[in-house]
Amino acid sequence: MAAQSVSVLITGANRGLGLEMVKQMVEAPRQLRKLFACCRDPEGPRAEALQTLAKKHPNIISVVRLDADDLCSIKQCVQQVGLLVGTGGLNLLINNAAILFRSNLLEISPEEMQKTFNTNVMGPMNIIKEFLPHLRAAAKASGTPGMSTSKSAVINISSTLGSMQYIHQSYDFIPGVSYRVSKAALNMLTACAAEELRKEEILFSVLHPGWVRTELGGENADIDAQESVLGMLDVMASMTEKQSGAFLDYKGKPVPW
Amino acid sequence: MAAQSVSVLITGANRGLGLEMVKQMVEAPRQLRKLFACCRDPEGPRAEALQTLAKKHPNIISVVRLDADDLCSIKQCVQQVGLLVGTGGLNLLINNAAILFRSNLLEISPEEMQKTFNTNVMGPMNIIKEFLPHLRAAAKASGTPGMSTSKSAVINISSTLGSMQYIHQSYDFIPGVSYRVSKAALNMLTACAAEELRKEEILFSVLHPGWVRTELGGENADIDAQESVLGMLDVMASMTEKQSGAFLDYKGKPVPW
Ligand SMILES: NC(=O)c1ccc[n+]([C@@H]2O[C@H](COP(=O)([O-])OP(=O)(O)OC[C@H]3O[C@@H](n4cnc5c(N)ncnc54)[C@H](OP(=O)(O)O)[C@@H]3O)[C@@H](O)[C@H]2O)c1
Ligand SMILES: NC(=O)c1ccc[n+]([C@@H]2O[C@H](COP(=O)([O-])OP(=O)(O)OC[C@H]3O[C@@H](n4cnc5c(N)ncnc54)[C@H](OP(=O)(O)O)[C@@H]3O)[C@@H](O)[C@H]2O)c1
Repeated sequence: MAAQSVSVLITGANRGLGLEMVKQMVEAPRQLRKLFACCRDPEGPRAEALQTLAKKHPNIISVVRLDADDLCSIKQCVQQVGLLVGTGGLNLLINNAAILFRSNLLEISPEEMQKTFNTNVMGPMNIIKEFLPHLRAAAKASGTPGMSTSKSAVINISSTLGSMQYIHQSYDFIPGVSYRVSKAALNMLTACAAEELRKEEILFSVLHPGWVRTELGGENADIDAQESVLGMLDVMASMTEKQSGAFLDYKGKPVPW
Repeated sequence: MAAQSVSVLITGANRGLGLEMVKQMVEAPRQLRKLFACCRDPEGPRAEALQTLAKKHPNIISVVRLDADDLCSIKQCVQQVGLLVGTGGLNLLINNAAILFRSNLLEISPEEMQKTFNTNVMGPMNIIKEFLPHLRAAAKASGTPGMSTSKSAVINISSTLGSMQYIHQSYDFIPGVSYRVSKAALNMLTACAAEELRKEEILFSVLHPGWVRTELGGENADIDAQESVLGMLDVMASMTEKQSGAFLDYKGKPVPW
């Protein structure tokens, strides 16, 4: 992000890549006005590390409850954020929260497919729609032409597992049918949003974080969360209207659909 | 399909492209052992044309109830089909039934997204999973190596609206966000199935029928159902293992994801 003061919201911010994003962003505090670190259970044991971090930066970090599966919690979060950002709006929304089941087609149940679709697609869709007034406010307040993640943007964290082109390389290793279907659906949702909101100069793009050692990525993954997030923040910072609708990895390399 | 006698099932067979497929397939009766023309209300007014056609070919066409949204009706259909195909199995399953809402992201509701996902993605997924024993039986019974739509195959009818690559050309004309998301998801589901069941020699592929004058396509579409289905049947007939996992249009041209 440019050196201007921005408001950012991250979902699934209590662990894994979400928590690391909060850490790295708050270390450059001049650039941040407000950082909304959202998670489904702010008072529970899984949010302890986030709460500790938030206490060190009480003026910047707000830990807010947001369950991607629960439209009511999304609406409540929007209200809380609105009170704090005011007419400046929300500059950057990062849909990071997601779940992964590893089942193949033979193993998958309708319930698993439904649950994954809820969290990984319906969640981001509802979050985007509900936060749109604040994203629009940010686009209007910016005063600069073009698009950037410091003006008004939504970054949806997807995966190369959501790429049809790459399926042959990875399917035997990890089928994850419901996850792949959800990420392909999220990619399409992002591409639609980019198209529809181009004229309002709100940037939409999908990022693949690499294969990262988190609970979701597992111990044998290629890189750690720090390296992934360093890369993703760099890529986000350099985004312009040219990247709206794009699918990039954490090094900025385009991923085929 | 080759000149061998095959069993075929088509969903949404009471009107539009589904009905036209039944018509054209039954006109080459030597190639067909059984044609299961499925629809959600076989006794209702929307199935009259199909019932009339079925009465002309009582040994070939069976009109069977199948509602893509209702797992119970899918299971019942599987049972009925099983009784009729026996150990020969089901050679070709065409997931044709689908719904389209035209809303953009601003207009779309969670209910619409859910409904479209149910019919256009969960439906085909459940249908594929439940019919798998009959598809496997057909693959085993065939005795020929390789893949074809006369041996054992699933064709999912998708759309270029489900292609991220083509979105820029069509979005202003028809947003259809939930439809696009569902077809991208269906494409991924097909690609996964192709990968997983390659070793069992069951072919999976997605077809775009063109822009066709049906209730779904509207009056101003490019071509009529007859032309679309003539093309699709030709494309299906020429498919081998090389086309498993592919996305082709009704002329056989590959569509980018
Ligand atoms: N790690 C990788 O190798 C990898 C690769 C490609 C893409 N990704 C993507 O990167 C993103 C982050 O993954 P990660 O590796 O950091 O995963 P992770 O360590 O498993 O963390 C997932 C996060 O999502 C949250 N979450 C799950 N369901 C939620 C819901 N319904 N509402 C709100 N939050 C919810 C979790 O919260 P709880 O603590 O409450 O469960 C947690 O904070 C995901 O979108 C993932 O698909 C990861
Ligand atoms: N027409 C085009 O231009 C076009 C372009 C691209 C792709 N396609 C695809 O081609 C396929 C056929 O479309 P079409 O143009 O023939 O559409 P259509 O004329 O609207 O017919 C849709 C069919 O799907 C059935 N259906 C809908 N929901 C169902 C459910 N829950 N269970 C069972 N059947 C259900 C309908 O049955 P009811 O009569 O009971 O409603 C009808 O038979 C679809 O997959 C569509 O996405 C069409």
